[in-house]
Amino acid sequence: MIEEAIFEELLELLERRDFRTLKQKLSELHEADVAEFIEEHSPDKAAIIFRLLPKPQAAEVFSMMDSDQRRILVTAFTDQEVSDIIEELYTDDAVDFLEELPANAVNRVLSLATPDTRKLLNHYMKFEEDTAGSIMTSEYVMLHPSYTVAEAIRYIRTHGADRETIYTCYISDPTRRLIGVVSVRQLLLADDEQMISEVMEENVISVEVDTDQEEVTNIFTDYDLIALPVVDKENRLVGIVTIDDILDVVRQEATEDMAKMAGLRPSEKPYLKTSVWSLASHRMVWLLVLMVSGMINGIILEHYEHVFIALPVLVSFVPMLTGTGGNSGAQSSVIVIRSMVLGEIQFRDLGKVIWKEFRIGIIAGLALSAVNFLRIYISYGHNFALALTVSLALVMIVIFAKICGAIMPILAKKVGLDPATMASPMITTIVDVLGLIIYFNIAMAVLNI
Amino acid sequence: MIEEAIFEELLELLERRDFRTLKQKLSELHEADVAEFIEEHSPDKAAIIFRLLPKPQAAEVFSMMDSDQRRILVTAFTDQEVSDIIEELYTDDAVDFLEELPANAVNRVLSLATPDTRKLLNHYMKFEEDTAGSIMTSEYVMLHPSYTVAEAIRYIRTHGADRETIYTCYISDPTRRLIGVVSVRQLLLADDEQMISEVMEENVISVEVDTDQEEVTNIFTDYDLIALPVVDKENRLVGIVTIDDILDVVRQEATEDMAKMAGLRPSEKPYLKTSVWSLASHRMVWLLVLMVSGMINGIILEHYEHVFIALPVLVSFVPMLTGTGGNSGAQSSVIVIRSMVLGEIQFRDLGKVIWKEFRIGIIAGLALSAVNFLRIYISYGHNFALALTVSLALVMIVIFAKICGAIMPILAKKVGLDPATMASPMITTIVDVLGLIIYFNIAMAVLNI
Repeated sequence: MIEEAIFEELLELLERRDFRTLKQKLSELHEADVAEFIEEHSPDKAAIIFRLLPKPQAAEVFSMMDSDQRRILVTAFTDQEVSDIIEELYTDDAVDFLEELPANAVNRVLSLATPDTRKLLNHYMKFEEDTAGSIMTSEYVMLHPSYTVAEAIRYIRTHGADRETIYTCYISDPTRRLIGVVSVRQLLLADDEQMISEVMEENVISVEVDTDQEEVTNIFTDYDLIALPVVDKENRLVGIVTIDDILDVVRQEATEDMAKMAGLRPSEKPYLKTSVWSLASHRMVWLLVLMVSGMINGIILEHYEHVFIALPVLVSFVPMLTGTGGNSGAQSSVIVIRSMVLGEIQFRDLGKVIWKEFRIGIIAGLALSAVNFLRIYISYGHNFALALTVSLALVMIVIFAKICGAIMPILAKKVGLDPATMASPMITTIVDVLGLIIYFNIAMAVLNI
Repeated sequence: MIEEAIFEELLELLERRDFRTLKQKLSELHEADVAEFIEEHSPDKAAIIFRLLPKPQAAEVFSMMDSDQRRILVTAFTDQEVSDIIEELYTDDAVDFLEELPANAVNRVLSLATPDTRKLLNHYMKFEEDTAGSIMTSEYVMLHPSYTVAEAIRYIRTHGADRETIYTCYISDPTRRLIGVVSVRQLLLADDEQMISEVMEENVISVEVDTDQEEVTNIFTDYDLIALPVVDKENRLVGIVTIDDILDVVRQEATEDMAKMAGLRPSEKPYLKTSVWSLASHRMVWLLVLMVSGMINGIILEHYEHVFIALPVLVSFVPMLTGTGGNSGAQSSVIVIRSMVLGEIQFRDLGKVIWKEFRIGIIAGLALSAVNFLRIYISYGHNFALALTVSLALVMIVIFAKICGAIMPILAKKVGLDPATMASPMITTIVDVLGLIIYFNIAMAVLNI
């Protein structure tokens, strides 16, 4: 976050139109802070500030700006400015930017790029969203296996300036197949005369372009990587994924999953910057779906109307039973969903998970039922049958909810649905319906209604 | 994940006791894969395999193993082996490891460390959990401002071997105050004769030891860093946080928040490795708390018994009303909780958030009510009063739920509670109670009961 005092100073310079001092001050700031400052202004003013930045810094600042702001800013740019920016950006940032633009703006930007850049961008924009291909960049250092360490360092020093990461270098054979990887750290710590083919790691961990970004993330954490090569089917290097992009992916995916778990269509924009209409419409769909299932519960309640007319007190246990069922199911589903994301649970573990949740359900269900039984027995004039009805229903509902909450996400993934949508709201709805049926049937049997 | 074929081969070598080939094969594998292989074995066998590894690889493998496995493995170690490991580990990994051990084991390990290491570890173990201090490491490269670039590179090449990151180097004045930072990339791309003080970045972004790790994470993403210096109150460098640790923090915090949002005490161990008892007890506390509030709802229902005895069909709308209220509140709370974690919402935004949620509540509430009104009016013999009662209650419940779901997490944080616990289960409970009161009071007024 930009400091208040600096922010005020910049504002004042801008108002006094002292662009020389402003330019000087901006060049001393971190790019993220400059981006924040620009975002506070109207497109025209933003463009003026932006023009004060030297080219490489300008591209950096641009890549750190909010997507909305970028879209607006680019409309205020001259063709030359658009062209400069697009050439300076790293491929992954440029592709990100293009993917956010409306189609006619994409065409304008691409037409202003050099033929090489255009070809590269077109190639990269083909990769599917949320795959390794969609987050990789093309700026990496490629070394020849016959280089010596000293030659390699010299090569990096002369060619490394426009490479997103120079800290991991890749080695390929004459057919461009990836045969090794070496970190700058290893190079620096090796002797000058050693050959790259001697110091390189031949056991290269790589992913294919269509690998899901969640899997890419798990590989990064499992192997403590800072960059990961992306290859095609013939094991030819097509790009690299760097850890700073992975950090963004992890945060974004966690946010999306949390949104889905709460019954929301995920939004990519920050809350305070999203319009009320957009937020409301993001929430409506699920609320409507869940409302309809709430109605189904209502129909079930109506079906058992004769039971609670015979004994109205039965109604007063419904919120506790459905609530506990919903919560029990939600707990299991969230744990399972998250474990799947972290690669800890696969489809083949389904049996293990069911067996585990079954036992947890029995333990939790019995404990909760015991508390319930005592409370009802004491508060409702030693009504043993009533206490038994509610407690029996509770055990069964908890066990059912636990198992249901755990297997639904696993099955969802198996059939190609997003497991995160099988969280709390969905599970609650299913559990409620069955819970009510269980409850009233036990009541009819035990209480002879 | 280790490949099946390689795994089988290693197993066979171990069974044939062909330790020579096994040693050879293991040294070719990635440390994460070796850790996975070792984890599959009993402590005795694990120790045997572990002893085949060369010292530096052994420490790497050790730091990648599961915490349970490390605890068990260390009991099978000789004093010399413990000492070797602890000296080879990076400070942050060693501190992590010590923090997981029972107290007597900590004493044994510390007593086997060299005096310098012991002093360092004791110092680091003092930092509070979840702060920058608790995740920083002491292995960084410190350069003198008067070095030339060539000298700096030579210094890194001779002293960098035991530093966790050599890619960012720090520069301090004679009083050890942090005055600059330079990346190896900048060094490699600069001219040999330039002075460090000329190429270094003086505008250093740093955090203090007690900065919350969530804030550290936000700084990493805002500024696209790969390492961040940690300083004391006098701006003296005490350690660095590296991006690979931040990646772990982000994943771990997201997992914890999701668990809390679903009403679970978070567990640090993978699901399949956690015992049924432990999982059940992690879930019981919240289920019990929420069950008690479900009972409060029951008491409220009992209180309005005369209303639904007069018109039993009123009961059948309860699940839909409480369900929709709970879901509406859960949506708002999860969005707000996540936005706070990402640093997008502060306490000062409270007014803005309430105003936004109020409007969203009106839009969503009216839309849902319209659907409801039509359904009830049509299905229940054109009963206008009944349709009005339910729809009016629904609008009010949704608005109330939205506002409540949004402000509870913000207020929780303000008074020092964890916002994530103010998600779905908690909100649902509060909204249910008030929702029922609203509903039955509207029913009494509109339907004259």
